[in-house]
Amino acid sequence: MCELLAMSANTPTDLCFSFTGLTRRGGETGPHKDGWGVAFYEGKGIRCFHDADASASSRLAEVVQTHPIKSEVAVCHIRQANVGDICLANTHPFIRELWGRYWVFAHNGQLSGFSAKQGFYEPVGTTDSEALFCDMLNHLRLNCQRDDTMEQMVEKLVSLSRAYASAGVFNLLLSNGDWLFTYCTTKMASITRRAPFGPARLKDTDVTVDFEAETTANDIVSVIVTEPLTTDETWDIYKPGEWRLWRKGEVVMNGYQRI
Amino acid sequence: MCELLAMSANTPTDLCFSFTGLTRRGGETGPHKDGWGVAFYEGKGIRCFHDADASASSRLAEVVQTHPIKSEVAVCHIRQANVGDICLANTHPFIRELWGRYWVFAHNGQLSGFSAKQGFYEPVGTTDSEALFCDMLNHLRLNCQRDDTMEQMVEKLVSLSRAYASAGVFNLLLSNGDWLFTYCTTKMASITRRAPFGPARLKDTDVTVDFEAETTANDIVSVIVTEPLTTDETWDIYKPGEWRLWRKGEVVMNGYQRI
Repeated sequence: MCELLAMSANTPTDLCFSFTGLTRRGGETGPHKDGWGVAFYEGKGIRCFHDADASASSRLAEVVQTHPIKSEVAVCHIRQANVGDICLANTHPFIRELWGRYWVFAHNGQLSGFSAKQGFYEPVGTTDSEALFCDMLNHLRLNCQRDDTMEQMVEKLVSLSRAYASAGVFNLLLSNGDWLFTYCTTKMASITRRAPFGPARLKDTDVTVDFEAETTANDIVSVIVTEPLTTDETWDIYKPGEWRLWRKGEVVMNGYQRI
Repeated sequence: MCELLAMSANTPTDLCFSFTGLTRRGGETGPHKDGWGVAFYEGKGIRCFHDADASASSRLAEVVQTHPIKSEVAVCHIRQANVGDICLANTHPFIRELWGRYWVFAHNGQLSGFSAKQGFYEPVGTTDSEALFCDMLNHLRLNCQRDDTMEQMVEKLVSLSRAYASAGVFNLLLSNGDWLFTYCTTKMASITRRAPFGPARLKDTDVTVDFEAETTANDIVSVIVTEPLTTDETWDIYKPGEWRLWRKGEVVMNGYQRI
């Protein structure tokens, strides 16, 4: 399987601390050594890094850990391959353009019996995750309008997610750079950090940060993961079947249906 | 304006030497300081780096210079902004998926009176270059088939390029990871390096490489640029209106029509 990490913030914020913790799990404290990737939005633009190597020993991952990239939305994935070879084309997050925006997708899980209908978007690699992403975008393009409200779009995303979840494990991070949609079937947790900020200690490596020194009083920064990254904070665990839509660091819509 | 660099090789080859020369021109030996980007194919996958800063002083560019990324096709661009703000979304090369492959586009020039028809692909940023790229892909999707031969596809690319070129400057690099299409209206040059390899010296910084030490006897590596990068080699200059299709380091199709 894989692990996921995302960030939603109300001000451009770097992901160095969380990324450092997650990437230890790619071959050091965890078995997710079959590639890693991260996408950072900067305005409508996107900056991404992908590697088919273990993140714990990747020189490029080290660059991302030590090179603060400020973003309001970031999506990250470390891979333990099940479907599809270990290669760059099979490394999340996947990116496509829809309605003049880059959409970014990362996924944990596997569906049984899923086969994507032919559509406009096609996978480049051979993972079922990328096929799912293309299927989602093909559905959105056919069933939504580019000027639909966020609420209308999210209604469609929730119904699609429920359909996928009925066929297996579907833990999802999806963003269009404006909002971040998260859906949990088995594991997902979040934490929202805001003033007064305190220190935090990573679970996977001996790194502590004092957020007080790195933030202003107005900052709101949320981190969403499949497995909590710190030992001294209280993470808000999603229920199976729960979804949350994040924007500028806060949950702006959410819902739950038992699965 | 901007400068372009591409590589086509018959074996995965790094771009460190050429990239080091080109990126000096982004704020040091040249005025193209409004961002830079590079895309490397690895199989069907793609690895890209973009920055809205000057390449000559970019830490990320330094990483790419010193971190040999092996690729058979690479496309690079340094920007001097004319249309569109200086921001990540406006930084070449641009990437889209078509028929299950990533297509990469970088462009030098400007067309007068160009307006893209609405289509499936839409620009995310505000450059005329990205609008041109989307227009090209929309044409291909409408007028070609996914299983068209390379020859059929290239015929369409040539006719589209000629139409754009009739409205201004259109120096183009376009790849689908298999082949690299290059079109010249004002400036483009190439060099093909093969055994016996020799040394080469960059024009823009005091760096020399001995390709003999870095290659095998079977390697064929071509570099295509808007302005030659070395002082001690003979570059093959394109004529205005000339196009060349590169595959595995060699020209496999080419043509010319006076413009």
